[in-house]
Amino acid sequence: MPGTPDTLLALAAGSTRTAVIDGISAAGADPALMAHTPSADAELLAYGHTVRAPVVPVSPSGCPTPAVVTRAVGERLGVETLVVDAGLAEPTGAPTVGVDASPGGDVRDETPVPDAADVFAAARDLGGSLPADRLVLAETVPGGTTTAMGVLAALGERRAVSSSLPENPLSLKECVVDDGLAASDLDAGDLAGDPVAAVREMGDPVLAAVAGLAAGALDAGTDVTLGGGTQLATAGALVRHAGVEAPLELATTSFVAEDESAAIRDLAADHDLEFTVTDPGFEARERHPAMAAYLAGEAKEGVGMGGALALADEAGLGMDEVRAAVVDVYDRVTDVAPEGSA
Amino acid sequence: MPGTPDTLLALAAGSTRTAVIDGISAAGADPALMAHTPSADAELLAYGHTVRAPVVPVSPSGCPTPAVVTRAVGERLGVETLVVDAGLAEPTGAPTVGVDASPGGDVRDETPVPDAADVFAAARDLGGSLPADRLVLAETVPGGTTTAMGVLAALGERRAVSSSLPENPLSLKECVVDDGLAASDLDAGDLAGDPVAAVREMGDPVLAAVAGLAAGALDAGTDVTLGGGTQLATAGALVRHAGVEAPLELATTSFVAEDESAAIRDLAADHDLEFTVTDPGFEARERHPAMAAYLAGEAKEGVGMGGALALADEAGLGMDEVRAAVVDVYDRVTDVAPEGSA
Repeated sequence: MPGTPDTLLALAAGSTRTAVIDGISAAGADPALMAHTPSADAELLAYGHTVRAPVVPVSPSGCPTPAVVTRAVGERLGVETLVVDAGLAEPTGAPTVGVDASPGGDVRDETPVPDAADVFAAARDLGGSLPADRLVLAETVPGGTTTAMGVLAALGERRAVSSSLPENPLSLKECVVDDGLAASDLDAGDLAGDPVAAVREMGDPVLAAVAGLAAGALDAGTDVTLGGGTQLATAGALVRHAGVEAPLELATTSFVAEDESAAIRDLAADHDLEFTVTDPGFEARERHPAMAAYLAGEAKEGVGMGGALALADEAGLGMDEVRAAVVDVYDRVTDVAPEGSA
Repeated sequence: MPGTPDTLLALAAGSTRTAVIDGISAAGADPALMAHTPSADAELLAYGHTVRAPVVPVSPSGCPTPAVVTRAVGERLGVETLVVDAGLAEPTGAPTVGVDASPGGDVRDETPVPDAADVFAAARDLGGSLPADRLVLAETVPGGTTTAMGVLAALGERRAVSSSLPENPLSLKECVVDDGLAASDLDAGDLAGDPVAAVREMGDPVLAAVAGLAAGALDAGTDVTLGGGTQLATAGALVRHAGVEAPLELATTSFVAEDESAAIRDLAADHDLEFTVTDPGFEARERHPAMAAYLAGEAKEGVGMGGALALADEAGLGMDEVRAAVVDVYDRVTDVAPEGSA
C-alpha cells in the first residue's frame, strides 16, 4: 500500500463465446473449465493461489497458465496489480474494478460486444485516474487471438495473430473471422478509424477495456506498456485508430516473437509500437512442467507474461531468479510435493 | 504483492436505505453525496485518493471520513487491503470482491436484506480462503448503526450503538427500529440464534458480509480482529449467534469507548469479544481539520479506524507518527495547499 506506485500492472479479464468454437483455444483443460480461466488467472495474480476458481488453468496437455510467470515476477519485484472485470463469465475471488463489461458473444454473431462504447469509455476514464507513473496492461480471455484477428480485419490491418496452441489454427480463425464479417455485413477495412465499432462488431470486451485503459492513461501522461502478444498489439492498433499518437510500448515473450505465424514485429511496426522481447531462458529448466510446454510452443504469452519479463529485465532481476520464482509459484499453486518428499 | 501477507485489512462497503431517514447519519455532506461515501472510502483505502467518487466524504460540518486515518496507518505499515462489495449503491474505482450483495432496503421495510443468506454464505466462503494469518475487518455503510441496533433487537441483545453525530439520535433510532420490528412482525429476541434471519429482517448487507467473513476466517483458523465500533460489535454478536466460539477481538477508537450512549465495553463483554481501545491522541493537533471534529465527538470510528490504530500500536508506530501520516493523507486527498504556499 504505497502512496503512488511507480508501476501498476492491470489485468483485463473477460470472456468471449468465440472460445468455445472447437479448436480455437488451449486456455483451459476442457471447454467447461476454460470459462473459469480468466477468473482463476485473476486470483493467481492477486493472491498467488486460486480462491473461488475450481482449478489452476492448464492447457489440455497440462501447460500451466502464464499467470504463474507474471505472479512469480510480481512477487519478486513487489509490483502492484489491479484486475479489471472486462466481462468475466464466472465468479472470481480476486478484487476487480468494473468497466460496465458483460461477457462477449461469438464473433460470428452480428454484434458480439454491444456495450463496446460503454466499456471503452469507462476504461478510458479509469486509465486516466489510476495512480501510477507507468501502467503495464495485460489480458486473459480464451479465444482472444481470434477476436483480435476479427478486429484487425475490421480495421483493415494485417491479420497476424499468435496462438496458445503449438500449431496455430490460422485457417480456422480466418474462416471464423470471415463468417463474422459476413454476419456484421462488413468488408475488411470498413471500420478503419472507428475502433469502438470494430470491437462492437468483431472483437471482445477485453480489447475494449485494454484499448480504453491505454488511451486514458496516455491522455493523462502515464507511460503505458502493452504486456502481451498479438492481442495487446491489436489493442495498440485500436489506440492508434482512436487517434492517440503518444509513444506506446509492446512487451512480449520470445515465444511469441519466434512464432512466424504471428508476425508480431510487423504488427508492432504497423502501429508504431516500441517493441520489446524478453526470453526467460526456459531451456535451462527444460524438463520442469512449468516451462517445458513453452519450449514446445504452447501458451507462449498471456496474463502480462511479456510485460512482467520486461519489468524483471529492467529491474536487473536475472532470468535465473525469474525461473526460480516460477518454480516456487508453480509448486505452491499446484501443491506438488518436491521429489523425494513424503 | 507478498506471498502471503501476515495481515489483511478487509473493508465491507455497502449501503442501506435506512441512511436517508432524516437525522440518522452524518456520513456525507448531504444525502445525495452520502450515497457515494462507501464507494469513496473504498477508493481512499485502495489508492489513497478518490478515483470515480465525486468527492472525499465529509460530515455536514466538514469532518473528513475516518478512511483518511486507516489509509494513513496502512501506508506507514504496508498493510494489504481488500474491499468487499457488500451492496454498494454507487460505482467505485476501487477493486472489489463480490459476495452477491445488493444495496440494502430501509430497516422499516418488511425484508430489507432479502439476500442475507447468500451474502453470509459467500462471505463465509471468502473469509475461509483469504490468504492471511490475521484478518482485520472494517465497514463503511452510512446508517449502519441504526441497522446494527435493529439486528441487536432482533437477536434480543443489548441495543447499545454509537453514532457519527456528536449527539447520538438514540430515540430516533429506537423509533425506527421499533417500526422495523413491527413491519417484520417481530418482537425483540424473536430471532435469537438465527443471525441470517436477523440481518434479513432488520439489518444491512454489510453486517451479513462482515459476520460471514469473520465466521469463515475463524473456521479456517485465521485470527480475526473486528476493527470498528458498535457495528462491528454487532457483527461479533452475529458470529456468536451462528455458534462460532473462537476467540475474537474488537478493536475500536477511544472516541467510541468514551461515548457513554454506546456502552461498547458492555457489548464486547456480552459477546465475549476481546476488547482493545486505541487513542490516537488527536488533542496534540486539536486545531487540525482532520482531527478537530473527532475531539468534538463527530465520526468517532469507521472504515476500520480502530483496527488500524490497534495495528499501529502493536507495530510500535507511535501516535505522533500516526498523526503526521494522517496530515499527509488529509493534505493529499483534499488538495489543501500548505499555509504560506502559493
